Amino acid sequence: MSKLRMKISMSLDGFVAGPNQSLEGPLGIGGERLHEWVVGLAAWREQHGLEGGKVNASSAVMEESLVNIGATIMGRNMFGGHPGPWDRARPWTGWWGDNPPFHHPVFVLTHYPREPLKVQGGTTFTFVTDGIESALEQARRAARGKDVTLAGGASACSQYLKAGLVDEMEISLVPILLGGGERLFEGAGDDLHGLRPARTVATAEVTHLKFARP
Amino acid sequence: MSKLRMKISMSLDGFVAGPNQSLEGPLGIGGERLHEWVVGLAAWREQHGLEGGKVNASSAVMEESLVNIGATIMGRNMFGGHPGPWDRARPWTGWWGDNPPFHHPVFVLTHYPREPLKVQGGTTFTFVTDGIESALEQARRAARGKDVTLAGGASACSQYLKAGLVDEMEISLVPILLGGGERLFEGAGDDLHGLRPARTVATAEVTHLKFARP
Repeated sequence: MSKLRMKISMSLDGFVAGPNQSLEGPLGIGGERLHEWVVGLAAWREQHGLEGGKVNASSAVMEESLVNIGATIMGRNMFGGHPGPWDRARPWTGWWGDNPPFHHPVFVLTHYPREPLKVQGGTTFTFVTDGIESALEQARRAARGKDVTLAGGASACSQYLKAGLVDEMEISLVPILLGGGERLFEGAGDDLHGLRPARTVATAEVTHLKFARP
Repeated sequence: MSKLRMKISMSLDGFVAGPNQSLEGPLGIGGERLHEWVVGLAAWREQHGLEGGKVNASSAVMEESLVNIGATIMGRNMFGGHPGPWDRARPWTGWWGDNPPFHHPVFVLTHYPREPLKVQGGTTFTFVTDGIESALEQARRAARGKDVTLAGGASACSQYLKAGLVDEMEISLVPILLGGGERLFEGAGDDLHGLRPARTVATAEVTHLKFARP
């Protein structure tokens, strides 16, 4: 059975992006600090065509997150660019350059229809306007039996959590306070739908909390 | 040097009490679930004059939290009873019965003056109306060289954190969503003032995240 596997980095005070998100600072003030643990890893650098980097207890967590994944779902805010209808004159193509690190189909939740965007390296962005269940169905079909990553942001994660559609969840808890921004669990309700702690990996930079259904 | 050691249980979505706190349900809806990990422990039961209970990885965390403590600070909402001026006709004496489990001086932050309340077992509640620094000074003096526990609730913790006065912090992260209530870090700012992860203990019921200054 193909699983929906959510993964996201969260501050100790519950934020997945800092205050004042903008085109120039898409993660808000201080938000880049949420991802310092991962961008320094050799595994992450290799995925992004870079050399060097660290190997530590987080490496296995990151590598595990990439195993058996056939598609990704993300929210419009994570795909980025601007809110509202797509700018057809200068279409936004994502944060990831010409060759995004996904190399599989990506489904973007949005209220605004748009033709699929095919880029280098096997990544196609498909824009889904008819809701989270439809996006999950399309992603599962595209994944051909493999699992689907739920990559963020907060709103997409909360919607899938509230609907009980998340099968596994990896929260990388970063020991910082952002003091404001986008909260991961805002609107997620009060029910984890059977998700229970499955494994914890602690380093000085981050604590990885994995949840699954027993 | 006498340390201020904060300890508190927090839900995965950041709450230390659920929604709709009241005299009948002081921890709000679902808030009791934050403390299930501790009330089942033999160490907790013994402290409260009860027999039996479990011994697991949380036992050592709880026992450690009691070592070398000479005084406790808490907020008015944690001491409880009712908001506003004290009811002199039927004075509230806390949640803990005739013989509270502290057995040392307790300092309660409040806006409303009141005479100290001496109860059985060596516990005296002193009501402090001139701010968190004064309460800390009084608690340190009363602790005679030992450390001081900051027991909660959210507002008291946030104030001490924001002022950079917390020397150690044990957050017992409970894998549940409360969906609303009192947030631990509301108003705590965006600075941990040098507190860094020092030790993590993970069980199926709770993950204990200890922070200290290196």
